[in-house]
Amino acid sequence: MQVLKDRIQEQGIVIEPNILKVDNFLNHQIDVKLYEQIGKEFAKRYQDQKIDRILTVEAGGIALACFVAQAMEYQPVVYAKKDPSAIISDDVYYANVHSFTKKRDYNIRVDKRFINENDNVLVIDDFLANGEAGLGLAKIVEEAKANVVGFGIVIEKGFQPGRNKLEEHGYRVESLAIIDEFKNGEVVFK
Amino acid sequence: MQVLKDRIQEQGIVIEPNILKVDNFLNHQIDVKLYEQIGKEFAKRYQDQKIDRILTVEAGGIALACFVAQAMEYQPVVYAKKDPSAIISDDVYYANVHSFTKKRDYNIRVDKRFINENDNVLVIDDFLANGEAGLGLAKIVEEAKANVVGFGIVIEKGFQPGRNKLEEHGYRVESLAIIDEFKNGEVVFK
Repeated sequence: MQVLKDRIQEQGIVIEPNILKVDNFLNHQIDVKLYEQIGKEFAKRYQDQKIDRILTVEAGGIALACFVAQAMEYQPVVYAKKDPSAIISDDVYYANVHSFTKKRDYNIRVDKRFINENDNVLVIDDFLANGEAGLGLAKIVEEAKANVVGFGIVIEKGFQPGRNKLEEHGYRVESLAIIDEFKNGEVVFK
Repeated sequence: MQVLKDRIQEQGIVIEPNILKVDNFLNHQIDVKLYEQIGKEFAKRYQDQKIDRILTVEAGGIALACFVAQAMEYQPVVYAKKDPSAIISDDVYYANVHSFTKKRDYNIRVDKRFINENDNVLVIDDFLANGEAGLGLAKIVEEAKANVVGFGIVIEKGFQPGRNKLEEHGYRVESLAIIDEFKNGEVVFK
């Protein structure tokens, strides 16, 4: 998605060997027009699929998932909540997720009322790097006996193993910008 | 806002003396059409005001603020991040907020790049109860030498002191549904 790649080149900041800061338009300050374009792009890429529900995880994915629903057919959006506590009730699906950036584990959970058996679920997230959050969301969908239609990722770090892990499970992955490497503080796309 | 009140009556669940669960359409599963209507209603209520920026706090406020921007003039949306750590850099505005529901304090922070001096800022949030988050967001706006145009609240607990605290500071508060009390597990609106 060229408009997104241009934006990353112009305003993204490479702050550590592997960290890209895009807080100017994606995940602290939000450019709502860009979010609309992102929503429409995912709607286009998955237009061949029946989608009953859009799943994401707080906080960065929520608004993105809403604009995907708006560009599709106003499917219900569900966001997994992050819960640092170990207390999990019987009424939720949950998955344990390791965050490499925050160097800790956390649980993500979805109330069982919000995924139905046989639902076709599109998973949306802002980043794909190690694939931990993605696998956690997919585990939740599978436990609900629903189907993962695929993943819609805004920025993929192509040099990290996330895509491989998801594809090994047979999941389709659509990313709008795939980063090949960071070179001298610049972003190189695939 | 009648459509919202109807929805709360139909699907809201009073689970404790003071807690209303609206996770079916507002803050776990999201009805995007309702979010659009909420955005349009805030746009209408603040149509007499010049607004440069929309501020909220993660996670519940983010998508709401985006739909307000969409219904207005695509102003930049900024969401304060919640940070349990005490480490605060010089580059952020922050406020300490006490959560009565979670019984703990946390910091909310906004990068200084994302509020400009003299900006007219509309603050959006899903709930107003004790007003702690609202006061924290207002403190951040004031520290940036920007102006709080007002608050746009989806559900206000009218029996708690949030509105009074905000109005004491001279802030305008627009709430789409004001709850007067919970009576025998039912919601009574003002």
